[in-house]
Amino acid sequence: MPPMHEIAHLAHVELRTPVLDQSVEFFTQYLGLTVTGSAGDAVYLRTWDDYENVSIKLVAHPTSGVGRTNLRATGPDALDRRVKEIEASGHGVGWQDGDPGYGPTYVFTDPDGHEFGLYYESEWYTPPAELRPSLKNQAQAYPARGASVRRLDHINFLGAEPVVNRDFMRDVLGAMVSEQIQLDDGTIAAAWTTFTNKSYDTVYTRDWTGSRGRLHHIAFATDTREDILRAADIALEQGVFIETGPHKHAIQQTFFLYVYEPGGNRVELCNAGSRLVLAPDWRTVTWTEAERAKGQAWGLQTIESFHTHGTPPVALDDAEPVTVEQDPIEGSVW
Amino acid sequence: MPPMHEIAHLAHVELRTPVLDQSVEFFTQYLGLTVTGSAGDAVYLRTWDDYENVSIKLVAHPTSGVGRTNLRATGPDALDRRVKEIEASGHGVGWQDGDPGYGPTYVFTDPDGHEFGLYYESEWYTPPAELRPSLKNQAQAYPARGASVRRLDHINFLGAEPVVNRDFMRDVLGAMVSEQIQLDDGTIAAAWTTFTNKSYDTVYTRDWTGSRGRLHHIAFATDTREDILRAADIALEQGVFIETGPHKHAIQQTFFLYVYEPGGNRVELCNAGSRLVLAPDWRTVTWTEAERAKGQAWGLQTIESFHTHGTPPVALDDAEPVTVEQDPIEGSVW
Amino acid sequence: MPPMHEIAHLAHVELRTPVLDQSVEFFTQYLGLTVTGSAGDAVYLRTWDDYENVSIKLVAHPTSGVGRTNLRATGPDALDRRVKEIEASGHGVGWQDGDPGYGPTYVFTDPDGHEFGLYYESEWYTPPAELRPSLKNQAQAYPARGASVRRLDHINFLGAEPVVNRDFMRDVLGAMVSEQIQLDDGTIAAAWTTFTNKSYDTVYTRDWTGSRGRLHHIAFATDTREDILRAADIALEQGVFIETGPHKHAIQQTFFLYVYEPGGNRVELCNAGSRLVLAPDWRTVTWTEAERAKGQAWGLQTIESFHTHGTPPVALDDAEPVTVEQDPIEGSVW
Amino acid sequence: MPPMHEIAHLAHVELRTPVLDQSVEFFTQYLGLTVTGSAGDAVYLRTWDDYENVSIKLVAHPTSGVGRTNLRATGPDALDRRVKEIEASGHGVGWQDGDPGYGPTYVFTDPDGHEFGLYYESEWYTPPAELRPSLKNQAQAYPARGASVRRLDHINFLGAEPVVNRDFMRDVLGAMVSEQIQLDDGTIAAAWTTFTNKSYDTVYTRDWTGSRGRLHHIAFATDTREDILRAADIALEQGVFIETGPHKHAIQQTFFLYVYEPGGNRVELCNAGSRLVLAPDWRTVTWTEAERAKGQAWGLQTIESFHTHGTPPVALDDAEPVTVEQDPIEGSVW
Repeated sequence: MPPMHEIAHLAHVELRTPVLDQSVEFFTQYLGLTVTGSAGDAVYLRTWDDYENVSIKLVAHPTSGVGRTNLRATGPDALDRRVKEIEASGHGVGWQDGDPGYGPTYVFTDPDGHEFGLYYESEWYTPPAELRPSLKNQAQAYPARGASVRRLDHINFLGAEPVVNRDFMRDVLGAMVSEQIQLDDGTIAAAWTTFTNKSYDTVYTRDWTGSRGRLHHIAFATDTREDILRAADIALEQGVFIETGPHKHAIQQTFFLYVYEPGGNRVELCNAGSRLVLAPDWRTVTWTEAERAKGQAWGLQTIESFHTHGTPPVALDDAEPVTVEQDPIEGSVW
Repeated sequence: MPPMHEIAHLAHVELRTPVLDQSVEFFTQYLGLTVTGSAGDAVYLRTWDDYENVSIKLVAHPTSGVGRTNLRATGPDALDRRVKEIEASGHGVGWQDGDPGYGPTYVFTDPDGHEFGLYYESEWYTPPAELRPSLKNQAQAYPARGASVRRLDHINFLGAEPVVNRDFMRDVLGAMVSEQIQLDDGTIAAAWTTFTNKSYDTVYTRDWTGSRGRLHHIAFATDTREDILRAADIALEQGVFIETGPHKHAIQQTFFLYVYEPGGNRVELCNAGSRLVLAPDWRTVTWTEAERAKGQAWGLQTIESFHTHGTPPVALDDAEPVTVEQDPIEGSVW
Repeated sequence: MPPMHEIAHLAHVELRTPVLDQSVEFFTQYLGLTVTGSAGDAVYLRTWDDYENVSIKLVAHPTSGVGRTNLRATGPDALDRRVKEIEASGHGVGWQDGDPGYGPTYVFTDPDGHEFGLYYESEWYTPPAELRPSLKNQAQAYPARGASVRRLDHINFLGAEPVVNRDFMRDVLGAMVSEQIQLDDGTIAAAWTTFTNKSYDTVYTRDWTGSRGRLHHIAFATDTREDILRAADIALEQGVFIETGPHKHAIQQTFFLYVYEPGGNRVELCNAGSRLVLAPDWRTVTWTEAERAKGQAWGLQTIESFHTHGTPPVALDDAEPVTVEQDPIEGSVW
Repeated sequence: MPPMHEIAHLAHVELRTPVLDQSVEFFTQYLGLTVTGSAGDAVYLRTWDDYENVSIKLVAHPTSGVGRTNLRATGPDALDRRVKEIEASGHGVGWQDGDPGYGPTYVFTDPDGHEFGLYYESEWYTPPAELRPSLKNQAQAYPARGASVRRLDHINFLGAEPVVNRDFMRDVLGAMVSEQIQLDDGTIAAAWTTFTNKSYDTVYTRDWTGSRGRLHHIAFATDTREDILRAADIALEQGVFIETGPHKHAIQQTFFLYVYEPGGNRVELCNAGSRLVLAPDWRTVTWTEAERAKGQAWGLQTIESFHTHGTPPVALDDAEPVTVEQDPIEGSVW
């Protein structure tokens, strides 16, 4: 039986961008995040409701893509237990200093090669006077700037073999598989896993190029669906590229808007209403090809780029492309 | 250290009503619940997103008030461990058959005398054809009738000594104390505790009458704050008594509407937006008298009946009233 | 100069359906209208905020499509003046009895052949006891059933030559042309006209089949965009066909959802937020082909059926089809 | 019969403030208006959806209060006709230059002494490049800053005798009286009048001090009720004083939030959903004392300051106070 409740939640994610200043502008003026510091090529940003110091670490880099994804353990013992299991799995890298404000971090990779950090010690965020919230049960003042997203919600990785990564998350880290897509030939094309009562925290989607270690998107939660409609209005005004949405996913029923930040990474604004997964014996919902062919919840067909755009971009000569025959549901993965 | 993650969530609650038919009408036509069955004096009802069979068990009774509050354990081992601890605490009653669709239930009381049931085995709800949802990751079709609340959210008990019950929830059941009110003399006037990533599942509020075992309210979650505004419109049209709201609590930041069902029990419709408590080392937020004197988040003063109305009603001659001196924040507990 | 403020508003519309019972079910259970009476093959229905007796007159008919569209004059003198102008235009038919609850109605057609009725005398709706609203400034109790749309909002006609109908509405009836689409060759492909501070009441869109007298859609207003998102959830649950949306039109900025009622007629649920046209010298906004090629406000491409589905259906052999060369913006009219 | 449709809409209002800089900060950072210019002691500001240049003219002044309230005529002839009627009424002052961007303005007062300006000529607003909207049917880019209110909505004047001012608006300017409060002794305590399809543009409320020429509040419209809830969150964060709300008025059913700007003037954020007054023969809704005693739509009791706070403040020695006997509904006027 998998170990449950050893990972508390998805924590700050390192994003790479070839246009750091423009990306910082996007995260602060469009999404409404706050810069909390910088060091070398890195700029640290946070949403107003994350209790730790950092939600996103933006790093100047020749390409777009995702760097280290951090997870917080539920306690020091849970951290030790997970590190032992990760080492046993052969994916461990070793202990490193955490980002500023974070304690020792155990670095590892998922089977696809995405880098992760696992830690427990964390300084809670202390806002400066001008960002102090009016209500003491809130981390930081509500910014009322741009989309003003509440918190980092989830990360969606592209991967060569979602099933292997799904099993790693479940068996080594203790995630629950809440939903997945299974093709007619049995292949798992995508899997949604959760460490919390949210219905998903990490997702693996098959990379049609066969590449490893890429990012599909990171997502931020808003309080309402209306917040996302307004975020679409703001994207239009600010010249932020809208890829698709707003609409409602059939899978997980998430209300979504997908945009690209200037560095090229896809960013989702998402809202689940009050939907939670509270059942300890949740039954994985498996979607078939036929079911996925129906499109999104209200009938929107999935946009083509949703299946072709990942970061960093890959030169297709170097990639192992999945043929159409191998990817029959290309038109409607989510 | 308290045991964490042994209780999965608050489950169905038994409510007593002297006017069963009218109460059923309220729960189905105003809140939008569905009747799933009845047995003797009991009618079973469910919200559209609860995955188990029952959200509320309405029971004909000479008075209003709360009967058994059920909790689901996270697994059979967790159930066994908690039963042992409850027995050790001296509050155990014993094993009983569960409600229809539920397995063996261990009955106990909190120190205040409210009855609880703890179980693990549970049949998942299977909707009849006419209530089958269009999306397979949903328990039941959305009713589009009345307020159409999503799920049971929390229960707020009145109790003679909140601190004792708070400690029982924390030390015996493994709840986390997310927020509380502490008077200047050190008394805990109210405490919010959670088993999940929701910021509270059960609450204890000091009963000004000094009575034991009473109910302050049960609450149902909606997806948006707008749903609650509309629920207020509908209450007005249907003649449902609105006690206070809609407004936003400072404590927990819950957007709320309080109404009375015809039997006299207070029912809250609540929305937390996307606020969750994800920190494994959450620091209990303690509100002082001075802070509470500011009223609700946006300044609404708490309505008097919020401090005097509990169910069942008590004859004050039989109660041990708290004097004004003992209850200096009577005007603004939430 | 055109006569202004002689038409008060768009009033009840007669819709034809080959499946009357199913259409009544759709209007009452999905949209939330109330049946107020029936006579022969006609069923009268109303939204909760229309102050007159009827919003929609559903009529059993071999095909779908639109019958008489009614307009209320601002007064008896305005009615007389408009009738004279209509007669002078050669489109008059003559005086007839109005529908039950309505006074003498002058029947005429637009240049495309759609039938209209113009009247002034109207009994205000008096709700029966069970539908009496709690607030006396409201026509009828809020139904809290299905989408619960507030009022009839606008009608969109298909027509062979939108420009001719636009000019008729403007010059004979006194409408203001708020927005329009002009193709590169100068053709007006669609025109939005208003009698009120709403930004449009009647619309003419070019019928690609070259047919006359057909309907593109009728629309009902909701209070919020969230109401429309919820209406999409309900459509999914009730098996109502969603053609496209929810999304936001670039033209008029209307937030929309398009569904088909069982008879085949397209119905829009729409919301304009608090957008009004208050300028007495409003400057018609003219959209070019290049601008329309950008799709809807947030980038949604217009669904193909939006350009091919009108009611009643036409046998293309009998129609005068517009060639692709003549209709270069077929992919993105709205 | 009163002249209808000669006034197009309420236009820009001059507000006086003893703390000009702080008031500008409130209007730009909290409400989200844009400064378009300044001249001497005046700063001109606009909302993003007003099509003219100015929504509010803030003027440095020893006290708070309202200066000139502008109305736009529907055309040059309507302007001439209204000026003749105003002169005939004895309330005319004479022609003056308008504010920058506005043509000749006829200045007059209402019977209570509030100053008005009536004009027709108006330059439409042309945004600079950085404020250009993405959609050409919008006046200015959506600011996404603070509450981002859409447009000036209405003005509520305090007056010694509402009925006299009501009749002036109706008989001289052509307003329609949509709702009013009539005390048991026949006195009109408040009257709501409209020039448009909005259910009110100007309101007169009895000044309990007996003073003349004071302001109760000015109001700005948002697109949704949720926008107003969020505006309350932002007020809390920014230290803006919330007087009452959010809640729903029974009269006019307006969803409201009342705050004070730093100069002391009361400002309302309001939303009517899609409620419009379309009936040309609208029947004035008259509320009785008994009906008003029920409080607001969902039961909120009116806050005391709602009846005592007006601008500029008056020294009560100089005022003619209304006695309690004369003002039996003091606790619940709206």
